[in-house]
Amino acid sequence: MYRDHNNSELNIKSLNKKVILSGWVQKIRDKGFIIWVDLRDRYGLTQLVFDTDRTSKDIMEKARELGREFVIQVEGTVIERESKNKSIPTGDIEVLVEKLIILNISETPPFTIEDETDGGEDLRMKYRYLDIRRNPVKNKLIFRSKVSMAVRNYLSQKDFIEVETPYLIKSTPEGARDFVVPSRMNAGQFYALPQSPQTFKQLLMVGGLDKYFQIVKCFRDEDLRADRQPEFTQIDCEMTFVEQEDILNTFEGLTKHLLKEIKGVEIKDFPRMTYDEAMQTYGNDKPDIRFGMKFGELNGVAQHKDFKVFNDAELVVGIAIPGAASYSRKDIDKLIEWMKRPQVGAKGMVYVKYNEDGSLKSSVDKFYDTSDLKAWAEKTGAQPGDLICVLSGKANATRGQLSALRMEMGKRLGLRKPNEFAPLWVVDFPLLEWDEDTQRFHAMHHPFTSPKEGQLELLATDPGAVKANAYDLVLNGNEIGGGSIRIHDQKTQSMMFDYLGFTKEEAEAQFGFLMKAFTYGAPPHGGIAFGLDRLVAILGGQESIRDFIAFPKNNSGRDIMIDAPAPIDEKQLKELDLKLRS
Amino acid sequence: MYRDHNNSELNIKSLNKKVILSGWVQKIRDKGFIIWVDLRDRYGLTQLVFDTDRTSKDIMEKARELGREFVIQVEGTVIERESKNKSIPTGDIEVLVEKLIILNISETPPFTIEDETDGGEDLRMKYRYLDIRRNPVKNKLIFRSKVSMAVRNYLSQKDFIEVETPYLIKSTPEGARDFVVPSRMNAGQFYALPQSPQTFKQLLMVGGLDKYFQIVKCFRDEDLRADRQPEFTQIDCEMTFVEQEDILNTFEGLTKHLLKEIKGVEIKDFPRMTYDEAMQTYGNDKPDIRFGMKFGELNGVAQHKDFKVFNDAELVVGIAIPGAASYSRKDIDKLIEWMKRPQVGAKGMVYVKYNEDGSLKSSVDKFYDTSDLKAWAEKTGAQPGDLICVLSGKANATRGQLSALRMEMGKRLGLRKPNEFAPLWVVDFPLLEWDEDTQRFHAMHHPFTSPKEGQLELLATDPGAVKANAYDLVLNGNEIGGGSIRIHDQKTQSMMFDYLGFTKEEAEAQFGFLMKAFTYGAPPHGGIAFGLDRLVAILGGQESIRDFIAFPKNNSGRDIMIDAPAPIDEKQLKELDLKLRS
Repeated sequence: MYRDHNNSELNIKSLNKKVILSGWVQKIRDKGFIIWVDLRDRYGLTQLVFDTDRTSKDIMEKARELGREFVIQVEGTVIERESKNKSIPTGDIEVLVEKLIILNISETPPFTIEDETDGGEDLRMKYRYLDIRRNPVKNKLIFRSKVSMAVRNYLSQKDFIEVETPYLIKSTPEGARDFVVPSRMNAGQFYALPQSPQTFKQLLMVGGLDKYFQIVKCFRDEDLRADRQPEFTQIDCEMTFVEQEDILNTFEGLTKHLLKEIKGVEIKDFPRMTYDEAMQTYGNDKPDIRFGMKFGELNGVAQHKDFKVFNDAELVVGIAIPGAASYSRKDIDKLIEWMKRPQVGAKGMVYVKYNEDGSLKSSVDKFYDTSDLKAWAEKTGAQPGDLICVLSGKANATRGQLSALRMEMGKRLGLRKPNEFAPLWVVDFPLLEWDEDTQRFHAMHHPFTSPKEGQLELLATDPGAVKANAYDLVLNGNEIGGGSIRIHDQKTQSMMFDYLGFTKEEAEAQFGFLMKAFTYGAPPHGGIAFGLDRLVAILGGQESIRDFIAFPKNNSGRDIMIDAPAPIDEKQLKELDLKLRS
Repeated sequence: MYRDHNNSELNIKSLNKKVILSGWVQKIRDKGFIIWVDLRDRYGLTQLVFDTDRTSKDIMEKARELGREFVIQVEGTVIERESKNKSIPTGDIEVLVEKLIILNISETPPFTIEDETDGGEDLRMKYRYLDIRRNPVKNKLIFRSKVSMAVRNYLSQKDFIEVETPYLIKSTPEGARDFVVPSRMNAGQFYALPQSPQTFKQLLMVGGLDKYFQIVKCFRDEDLRADRQPEFTQIDCEMTFVEQEDILNTFEGLTKHLLKEIKGVEIKDFPRMTYDEAMQTYGNDKPDIRFGMKFGELNGVAQHKDFKVFNDAELVVGIAIPGAASYSRKDIDKLIEWMKRPQVGAKGMVYVKYNEDGSLKSSVDKFYDTSDLKAWAEKTGAQPGDLICVLSGKANATRGQLSALRMEMGKRLGLRKPNEFAPLWVVDFPLLEWDEDTQRFHAMHHPFTSPKEGQLELLATDPGAVKANAYDLVLNGNEIGGGSIRIHDQKTQSMMFDYLGFTKEEAEAQFGFLMKAFTYGAPPHGGIAFGLDRLVAILGGQESIRDFIAFPKNNSGRDIMIDAPAPIDEKQLKELDLKLRS
């Protein structure tokens, strides 16, 4: 037996107990006549003590051979510490060592195994197994496991069945790029790894399974942006005989349960907001509603003077930044520079200082008088002491820019509190979005999303105006889930494929099985999928997903620890009937 | 709202309730003045009734349009049935329909949606979504979900953490064939899909996670035998600071929990048997111990006469088939023919009838007298009325043949009862096995398995005799899990790779990261992996895994429903820097 207790279990009640412990050497303090060693395992730390009075010479000598991260097993007696450490559960005691076995030695680790490490990102990734020994990483993995279990328990109690859908499926050129898998037994043919189990979960509904979920890996061969992974995890869900309202209620329940169970937070408000409202009020379809700074549209109160910039604009819109009237000219110039960076792309910014004394001073005093500025203050909800920032231009772009400012100021002002949680539903998304590259409409969600009742006809006349039974679950400014009520009749689905520019042959080759399934009594159904990596990170109060993934890949899609991908044998290629081009 | 009750909820207590139900039309009985429709959903059946007295003409007409598998929604009143059906929970009532909406029509399904269907295997697979509507398939998927949840709950309560390991890893030519995934961002390089998360779970132990599990898809590109799938699911587990005994106890606990929770079966005996003992007693390293027919080795009592066949044999071994002394000459000849089929491969079979009256009659009476045969009866545990079957030849082959006979007779005699469960551990497996093809030893389990203490030296002198810290969990004649205590020091691991014929370069290229990890304080660790598909099938009392998988592939690795694998676009190939050879 390697241990009879772990390293967080012993305390003052264990005094005089003979115990066996195992773990890693975290720290050694050698005072000559006495040696303390902090022994670490997943559960915690226990202090070991060796001293010349009470420890045999052999063991003292062996203790002096120890180094950081050695793996040891000790037998000893629990004694009371002289100087106690109230910050850990075992801080009242130490173990006087009577037997010491070195289970494994360790070379000096390439970075310190401490909460704050001296290792850079690349080094930590290369030695991820050492990085995982550090509490911040270890705890994030444990946290993820708890979130997954809480999800599973909740959904299982609600009669959802977890069904494993296949990983070796069929490539569809639509949407993001697939990872493909050459088939040896079917030469010249390929499987694809699923970007999501979308069609399979719909088939399970056609199959009458009624309530399905799965926590499942999905794959996308995209050029990686920061904090994107080629493989990622979804909580994938689908329900039958439901309307949008049933789905929103079910997953509002899940979200509340998670926040309660995992974070101890009771959510009272769970607002629903249309896409149009979110765009108008926050310039963003995933608004962070932990703080205000709602948009005030100023067209009506800013286009009646001689200021051409505003008069020519599709939209004039502003927000009030709380307490920022005191900003110096330099502060404001800096902010304007920040807005002009290519990442945001504003041409410039008009501002109004709403001073504490009630006076108003703007960068466009030449054009507007106090009563105009008062009207702006009213529209943006500005209070004395606030700074009103106003942008103008094309509606969509301007909203995006102002949203960037709002988010940035929320961050700077400490309004995006990691332990405050404000979920909401954004509903009534457009069915289609215009794609500049291909100069045609694409499905905003995916081609299986149903249009709102009675709007199918609009497709022909005003496609951009058609709204979908599609919804996103937003938490703290992040989309954590998205879904829709699906099309369930063959005719509508076929029409949608037509509309999206699939030829009959393409639609048949790629989704023929689904349309066939729809002819055998497909029930009304809909669902949602959550991004688990992101959800866990947000619940953990973090921005980056990477440390919530045990073995993440870098931005070139490489696992630098195992050095993958890698070339394969010519023999393997031959078996797959493949040749490299270059 | 599509429904306020499901189709198994209404009963005599619901009388006079107004209800809304949705589901599929299972059956229609039209008596002219009255129409009954069985409405089906995942949960059950509810009988709907339409009659000319109480139902409007419109609705009667609409009801006459219904066909099998139409999806409908009805509103109506719960009334008492005249002729009750005690076999279903809703059998006392029916719903008098006041409103009928056809949610979707259905073409006539290609096979009947009944417990016993007229559809053949291929048709069922092509229309799997219809097959899943049938209770036997649907219930197996629900059962699988329950087993998975029970596993997760048990392990989570025991402090195991579920960690998701990557799917895009590195190909290793060792072992079975990998599925590979070409990398677009790293041209000419490939990921591999994991055959198991073996190395990653070991790295998690090096990382101090202590107790890991994962229910995870694994992939093997093998020529498929019946009831094998290219993708399959493992319950993968690993523990730190454990000896073999700790692992056996933990997973004995899991197995008992599952049998209790899922099948209501209390397991008292959980025997452990060495590999050698299993081979000697049952001729099989995964013995079905639900029944006896243990092997009796007869060398000592059968090689002293002039029967050359036995005298020349390495092993003479027999079993007693209960009650089979009454077999006719024809029965026995048939059995011998069965044994001579190439699948079994026996050259012949000697038999002894131990008649009810105590007399003995054998096929080798020319050579052996009654006292010889009595000794055989004693060794095989034969009772009057039994038939003793004796084989001889090379030990391993002969044991395999006799085991085949034992299993077949167990089946014929009804001794392999699907609802009886007899788990056991088979321990002390050989570390290596001889491979005739390559004329060298291979790792029997995998190259990370540790030899028994003190046996490392034997590797040089008598490699076949080295035993490993390896164990299989066997249930009803199936290996449902297997694992080992791993090597955790770099030197032994490196020696093992040497021994298995890896060059230094190969070992470094394939497993360098693991050996590197072992130099940084790797702890003692070990684990086990269960085949979930098989486990679920056995718990479900079935032989075939296929219906416990939602969307299985056929024996050519094809999904005939979605028609995958399939050719991909030239453009996709180009992006991957690949060309087809042929």
